[in-house]
Amino acid sequence: MDRIGVVDTMFARVDMGSIAERRLAGMEGFGARFKVVRRTVPGFKDLAVAARQLIERENCEVVIACGMPGGAELDQVCAHEAAQGIMLAQVLTGKHILEVFVHAQEEPDPARLTELCRHRVGSHALNAYWLLYAPEELRKRAGQGIRQGGPDAGPLPGA
Amino acid sequence: MDRIGVVDTMFARVDMGSIAERRLAGMEGFGARFKVVRRTVPGFKDLAVAARQLIERENCEVVIACGMPGGAELDQVCAHEAAQGIMLAQVLTGKHILEVFVHAQEEPDPARLTELCRHRVGSHALNAYWLLYAPEELRKRAGQGIRQGGPDAGPLPGA
Amino acid sequence: MDRIGVVDTMFARVDMGSIAERRLAGMEGFGARFKVVRRTVPGFKDLAVAARQLIERENCEVVIACGMPGGAELDQVCAHEAAQGIMLAQVLTGKHILEVFVHAQEEPDPARLTELCRHRVGSHALNAYWLLYAPEELRKRAGQGIRQGGPDAGPLPGA
Amino acid sequence: MDRIGVVDTMFARVDMGSIAERRLAGMEGFGARFKVVRRTVPGFKDLAVAARQLIERENCEVVIACGMPGGAELDQVCAHEAAQGIMLAQVLTGKHILEVFVHAQEEPDPARLTELCRHRVGSHALNAYWLLYAPEELRKRAGQGIRQGGPDAGPLPGA
Amino acid sequence: MDRIGVVDTMFARVDMGSIAERRLAGMEGFGARFKVVRRTVPGFKDLAVAARQLIERENCEVVIACGMPGGAELDQVCAHEAAQGIMLAQVLTGKHILEVFVHAQEEPDPARLTELCRHRVGSHALNAYWLLYAPEELRKRAGQGIRQGGPDAGPLPGA
Repeated sequence: MDRIGVVDTMFARVDMGSIAERRLAGMEGFGARFKVVRRTVPGFKDLAVAARQLIERENCEVVIACGMPGGAELDQVCAHEAAQGIMLAQVLTGKHILEVFVHAQEEPDPARLTELCRHRVGSHALNAYWLLYAPEELRKRAGQGIRQGGPDAGPLPGA
Repeated sequence: MDRIGVVDTMFARVDMGSIAERRLAGMEGFGARFKVVRRTVPGFKDLAVAARQLIERENCEVVIACGMPGGAELDQVCAHEAAQGIMLAQVLTGKHILEVFVHAQEEPDPARLTELCRHRVGSHALNAYWLLYAPEELRKRAGQGIRQGGPDAGPLPGA
Repeated sequence: MDRIGVVDTMFARVDMGSIAERRLAGMEGFGARFKVVRRTVPGFKDLAVAARQLIERENCEVVIACGMPGGAELDQVCAHEAAQGIMLAQVLTGKHILEVFVHAQEEPDPARLTELCRHRVGSHALNAYWLLYAPEELRKRAGQGIRQGGPDAGPLPGA
Repeated sequence: MDRIGVVDTMFARVDMGSIAERRLAGMEGFGARFKVVRRTVPGFKDLAVAARQLIERENCEVVIACGMPGGAELDQVCAHEAAQGIMLAQVLTGKHILEVFVHAQEEPDPARLTELCRHRVGSHALNAYWLLYAPEELRKRAGQGIRQGGPDAGPLPGA
Repeated sequence: MDRIGVVDTMFARVDMGSIAERRLAGMEGFGARFKVVRRTVPGFKDLAVAARQLIERENCEVVIACGMPGGAELDQVCAHEAAQGIMLAQVLTGKHILEVFVHAQEEPDPARLTELCRHRVGSHALNAYWLLYAPEELRKRAGQGIRQGGPDAGPLPGA
């Protein structure tokens, strides 16, 4: 059975990993063709190595890495370092690790931030599934201005 | 038969991959000497690992990686991370991955942005071809201020 | 017996490594199931390679890397480079290295900065223990807005 | 026969590679002890992987990588990524790759910029030669404030 | 006999490598237990690969890498790239490379800058020695706010 990894943090203010798990549990083939391996780490700087472990120790084919950086300048530098680590882990392992970060400054209203978070995590759970089982779904949306966490931007006029 | 990889995103607002495919399809040797392998990923941070997969799993000799970062500050940081990933994948695999990014802030008019995008992707498709089959075409344009997506700057006076 | 690595610096203005050692010494299994290997390096840019050595030469399963960057702009660039090195060492070794940095600008009052430092180092010592022996403790706090060095932020409303 | 690699870009507005070639052609041992392998790539982000190829496929002992970033903010970010790639390629291959970048904003006058470019490329061609055949020339200039592309700064008073 | 590597630049305005050499020559075991291997490279971006060569070709156990970045914005970006390269070389080789950078903007007075430089290089030469032969000296100074190039900051009150 294939494995999809999900890793999130104690630091985030939304249980992002559970959103991903629930979304994946509703997809065709769950429990038969693939299962989900879940881990939680302290903060977003711990995601990259955890994703690598999910790929190499747990044989995950793809990983969804969820974090929620704070809005202070120092947090933004840390988020950049965390994102670079996830990029490095992807390129070194040769497997997709979807970086699902929701930044506090994206939305000041807490309820809307929660909603944005749900939408983004859910969309990336679907993306992970498509990367593994339905690349043609990604292909037919090429250049369509697809967004995660908000309305799609759509294609440019004349594009 | 050689393989040229093309990877683009759902996030972009122009179907950049199809522009590259069409351009490559018009080149000498298409279908005989080389073919094109196309993939689409969710966003530009997924390009680097996809390019690595195209090189290592699909045996592509060169990859054209297309993305269209948004204009917000956070988008620019993400674009930087994506570009670093593509750089890392290039250096690690030892194969050229042409990073073809069109930034929203380069041109406020949507129709012109689309046009710039077409021009840049097309030029880099030609560059990929030259890297593989006609390095002398690159050599004879050394230092000529060649641009992709706008008019060439030309050589400096006295250069 | 398992090994937990602790590395800190002469540069810091608090003996962070000893805080981590004391905290770990109070945990179940200390001296029986695991022991602590301690090192001190000159400054925070020396932490990454020291952590790698603790993992590869000393067989540590997890490392706590403690530093205290100054507040000047140049210090912040150095801290960024140090953090990138720790990230790189983590991803390359595939082992968690908890980066425990306390930045001088986080708190102007020296006594409170010392207190923040104690709290953060202690919390990360616990996190290192949980990563190794009690991942379920991390899992049940997913998305709870857990902080190290200050009060927890808690989950967002509706999350 | 040893090989010295030279790689430059179509993007630059001066044929930097030819300057390097001409300078190397005037050095002792040219054609007997060493020869020059030249390549041109589209832009400066393509230099790192080309340098790696010159080292690994063409057996170059040292590479001179020439680029001319534009003055816009986006160009500067790209130049940073290109420089990081060259650094990565150096450290991974264990061979010197001299990064010879001339930034448009260094000199507003085009004729002077061309002159600066000639001087810098020429000086680095000599540096490449010294790295390979005359390390004592580098050694005796340690701390002398040597510059490429402008007058030497000289040693500090009392140094 | 062990080897300690020292690498510096022609670009610097103080012969930093000779300061390190003289300091090391005064330490116990010099010429018997360890010797110094010295190299000079053109600029600080050449330090990382030279350090790697000292470690892998010359079998150095530790390297002191000395540079003196200028004060312009472009110099600072270059210094950041050079420092990232040194960090990368450290983590990849698993050996300490002490980055000893003196930034022009740290001290406007040339004579004092020279003095700062002497003090910092000398202190790091001692640190290199301690890393190799006296780790207990580092350990007993943990958290003491030790500085190189200026007076120690000392521990925080209550720490």
